[in-house]
Amino acid sequence: METLLLNSEDVLANARTSEVIAAVEDAFAAYEHGDAQMPAKSYIDLPQYNGDFRSMPAYLDVRKSEYGHSGESDSVPNSDGAGDWDAAGVKWVNVHPDNADRFDLPTVLGTIIYSDPRNAFPLAVMDGTSVTRLRTGAAAAVATDYLAVEDATSLGIVGAGVQSYTQLEAISEIRPVERVVVSDIDAERVAAFRERFGDDFDVRAGSVEEAAACDVLSTVTPVEEPIVRREWVGERTHVNAMGADAAGKHELEDEILLDATLVIDDHAQTTHSGEINVPYSRGVLTDDDIHAAIGEIVVGKRPGRTADTGVTVFDSTGLAIQDIATAHVVYEHAKETGAGYPFDLVDTRVR
Amino acid sequence: METLLLNSEDVLANARTSEVIAAVEDAFAAYEHGDAQMPAKSYIDLPQYNGDFRSMPAYLDVRKSEYGHSGESDSVPNSDGAGDWDAAGVKWVNVHPDNADRFDLPTVLGTIIYSDPRNAFPLAVMDGTSVTRLRTGAAAAVATDYLAVEDATSLGIVGAGVQSYTQLEAISEIRPVERVVVSDIDAERVAAFRERFGDDFDVRAGSVEEAAACDVLSTVTPVEEPIVRREWVGERTHVNAMGADAAGKHELEDEILLDATLVIDDHAQTTHSGEINVPYSRGVLTDDDIHAAIGEIVVGKRPGRTADTGVTVFDSTGLAIQDIATAHVVYEHAKETGAGYPFDLVDTRVR
Repeated sequence: METLLLNSEDVLANARTSEVIAAVEDAFAAYEHGDAQMPAKSYIDLPQYNGDFRSMPAYLDVRKSEYGHSGESDSVPNSDGAGDWDAAGVKWVNVHPDNADRFDLPTVLGTIIYSDPRNAFPLAVMDGTSVTRLRTGAAAAVATDYLAVEDATSLGIVGAGVQSYTQLEAISEIRPVERVVVSDIDAERVAAFRERFGDDFDVRAGSVEEAAACDVLSTVTPVEEPIVRREWVGERTHVNAMGADAAGKHELEDEILLDATLVIDDHAQTTHSGEINVPYSRGVLTDDDIHAAIGEIVVGKRPGRTADTGVTVFDSTGLAIQDIATAHVVYEHAKETGAGYPFDLVDTRVR
Repeated sequence: METLLLNSEDVLANARTSEVIAAVEDAFAAYEHGDAQMPAKSYIDLPQYNGDFRSMPAYLDVRKSEYGHSGESDSVPNSDGAGDWDAAGVKWVNVHPDNADRFDLPTVLGTIIYSDPRNAFPLAVMDGTSVTRLRTGAAAAVATDYLAVEDATSLGIVGAGVQSYTQLEAISEIRPVERVVVSDIDAERVAAFRERFGDDFDVRAGSVEEAAACDVLSTVTPVEEPIVRREWVGERTHVNAMGADAAGKHELEDEILLDATLVIDDHAQTTHSGEINVPYSRGVLTDDDIHAAIGEIVVGKRPGRTADTGVTVFDSTGLAIQDIATAHVVYEHAKETGAGYPFDLVDTRVR
């Protein structure tokens, strides 16, 4: 038996955005239903290299869930036609902020081992960096589907780095996005973003204030001091707060979080390292201010946007189940298309 | 940059036993000195498949240690000539006891991602099953070096399965083993073991009693009821109790553990799933009965065998640092020999 090796090109070529969104939605539902296992991330801190490693194992079973797959939302197709799958694996990933300067390498490098839960055979080893970007865009899309106004046509993006591309790619799958306002302190990044998407959307550079006035806003920056002001946010804007991934980081003024219908991905992760971690640790924001976990909305336990809803915020930290759900979509299509390189990695002889 | 893919043949061809033993000894020392990080294993339990997954991340730095590398023991060469390395990685491994019957696959299948701690680049992905066998033999060899009589010439092995081979290969590196008694309820396994080693050693089939009378005894079985009786063990025999790896398993009668100079690898793991877990959980055996952790002996904090020492027991559960230390040796030699398949697994473009 051979393990399929999938590099970033293979991952991107076999990750159909609509199916990744559906699989991530399935993952949120399975987690809510107790049909997923996601042990806490294990950290290895290496201050001598200004970096860390994180081990993110997960298992999810979307078969058991009554909810099944796309449920209430009819704009997202099924992940593989039946919602009839389970999946296991681990993502080994890091954050080394000095990598670009010191090694000409990205800050984050991920590798995923994707395994058959029935017998633990490693079906695939794949680039986890691409998977991380895809599943992050997909999470924003799922939240946008339940929380943005139905006829959202404008998308603001603050931060035009590597995570911004999948925000537009995924969100435009579930809302009729026409106009995009992209804001970044680095003009080259803005130009590259416009170059990539200018043919398909009306993309223009703008201020954070202009981005925040759009129907949907995605923030994908690493800032530690909020850059989005309360008064800039549109009355019925949905905000995907994707950037905060460590204690001390936040992108939105506290008043936005306090005024909004606030949705999180996972309570432990988001209070530790998500958008709300700073006001939460100070007691400015409490559990009473949290409307729901995204999984509760997906399965129908809690409402998404209603006629009365104003600003909504999705605080996304990124869950291991999203990675494994995305890896599932990639692997299934890679098998179909013959992508990747099969390698006899593990000794399967029974002795 | 490319990631080196190493299958089981590549691992075995590039794991020089003496260097793996030295690297594992270094790992025990680094752990004792606080120069290693080894978060608790994360488990995913899948009762529906009678199996589980374990995520085992680790980092170790043998450079900081005053002890350095082979230290007091002069029979083990340095792992790479200088003890001047650090290493990080994760082993993703499972236990699916029905695999042979249901899938014609081994019960245990491991995969290791081996990373550069400086920047997290995945230097190698390798077969973790072979690494597990190698590092388990190496751990027994390190313990034997400190705890067995110097002139040990006879080795008893109880259980002739996949783990038995590396016991002989590693232990014979550090003691002048001539005579081997191998005991197993399966005559085919015994025959295969004799076939493999008969040319180099005086190997004969024998009872557990005969194996236990040897200078060194390694038990590598999955039994839940002890099979080695107190009265069978030689007066100055050193026992490597390698088999127990889950709550409820033990191979040696309690009296052996209580009478012996008892050495463990890691307190949390061994009291949970090692040889001592059953008597420890019953209160029959307490912390007062534990002489030392192997790392304490390696760094000289606690004595190994002395003129007065009788029976010794090493309770080995297997640590993630052993896996990563072994992966280090394999990777360094694979680079030298040009082994393996280089693959552009992760996207290293900085954007």
